[in-house]
Amino acid sequence: FDRQKVVRTCLRMHATPEQAQLVADKVVEQMYDGITSKKILQLVFHNLGKHRPELKHQIDLREAVAKLRPKPDFEKFVGLLLQEYGYRIFMNQIVDGSCVNHEIDVIAKNDDEVLYVEVKHHLQHHTFTGLGVFLEANSTFEDLNGGKLNFSKAMVVCNTKISDHARRYGECRGIRHIGWKSPEDKGLEQMIEEKKLYPITILKGMSPVVEARLGDAGIVLLKQLAVKDIKALAKSTGVPTSVLQELALSADEILR
Amino acid sequence: FDRQKVVRTCLRMHATPEQAQLVADKVVEQMYDGITSKKILQLVFHNLGKHRPELKHQIDLREAVAKLRPKPDFEKFVGLLLQEYGYRIFMNQIVDGSCVNHEIDVIAKNDDEVLYVEVKHHLQHHTFTGLGVFLEANSTFEDLNGGKLNFSKAMVVCNTKISDHARRYGECRGIRHIGWKSPEDKGLEQMIEEKKLYPITILKGMSPVVEARLGDAGIVLLKQLAVKDIKALAKSTGVPTSVLQELALSADEILR
Repeated sequence: FDRQKVVRTCLRMHATPEQAQLVADKVVEQMYDGITSKKILQLVFHNLGKHRPELKHQIDLREAVAKLRPKPDFEKFVGLLLQEYGYRIFMNQIVDGSCVNHEIDVIAKNDDEVLYVEVKHHLQHHTFTGLGVFLEANSTFEDLNGGKLNFSKAMVVCNTKISDHARRYGECRGIRHIGWKSPEDKGLEQMIEEKKLYPITILKGMSPVVEARLGDAGIVLLKQLAVKDIKALAKSTGVPTSVLQELALSADEILR
Repeated sequence: FDRQKVVRTCLRMHATPEQAQLVADKVVEQMYDGITSKKILQLVFHNLGKHRPELKHQIDLREAVAKLRPKPDFEKFVGLLLQEYGYRIFMNQIVDGSCVNHEIDVIAKNDDEVLYVEVKHHLQHHTFTGLGVFLEANSTFEDLNGGKLNFSKAMVVCNTKISDHARRYGECRGIRHIGWKSPEDKGLEQMIEEKKLYPITILKGMSPVVEARLGDAGIVLLKQLAVKDIKALAKSTGVPTSVLQELALSADEILR
């Protein structure tokens, strides 16, 4: 058991350093032999919730991201994330390569580079993203670079951890990636926290049906939900105003 | 409706040309508006069965191949197939590439070439094998060729049809393939028929449990079943002698 890990988890959830220490103390008291890491996380949530009531509205971030539909919601999510980090985004483009054309999930441009982005979503958040995705990305990148558009790099963005095998290959071939806790200094979870890009699925009351309807309307982030005209949104999605209102208020509490 | 197609199907099932014509006549009589191709195939089976009683024991070849377990049975099947066509076979090798090592399903050698073989099995026999498999194979081949073993070509072997997109890419990159009815002149079905390499799953009485037990014992072909000592096989697999005896007799009827 690593006390510091609990402290870091709390800080990542925007606890103050003092709150983080208090929570860690409490968790240590409530520990028992053979406790699972899932149970520890629940204890952290429970104790941190006393200091930060907005946590009552949210579920674990990694689970939340996994709950987004792979297409189009997680792809959209990745697009918005890269946009927040200064890229111009082009979604679902069909681009000629030297052998065949390729359907590219996201193209991300800034002044320095043009990224070909391969998006990989696992519904099961404990699954690792493996070598296969990187092998595919490598061949696609290679084939694209015989075509008209000039790409500077390939990038894999996924919602889970990345196997060592896959990471070694990616580094060797110059394929960039964003995954869960990877790269170490700037994984998906850190990018999300830094810009508060929480997926709507982090809300406890979010049913798959409502998620799908909001997703169809292009809404995948709490941020988008909080600023939307609720009445207009109810009309376009068919989700009752009362439900949307409650979700928007919870979103606001988490974001502020 | 294409009468010639029925004739060709019959010939592929080893009907004589006369039998094929008779069956086609019968099928034409029994046709009706809106008949599905599955129903047509059933009619062909039914009518051909009157001339060739051994058909009573077998199901459609494509379905049969799909019923093999992907690992290790279909891989083993592919190994034996390539062996019959003159290759020396090495299964499930781990080979160093220039970036990472790779688990290779099959390596096939003859005097002229060393093939890296990627095996892809779909349980659903109507699924197409798509671009992704060929993109992976291309990157793997590229990475292997930085290693110690010298491969001359990559080859994809699968049990279903191959999408046009994938085939175009494969041709462009020099990746060979064997799939269902592809290449046109020598698809998997033709290779199987030519050497009578029927999978054990072609037998009507073959339950998934028995298939798995035989597969665990390395038996995936009718040929293997027909020449085995039944008593010894019953002992090593735990399948009752009476069941094995019946299967071996049916196998023999189909093979002779």
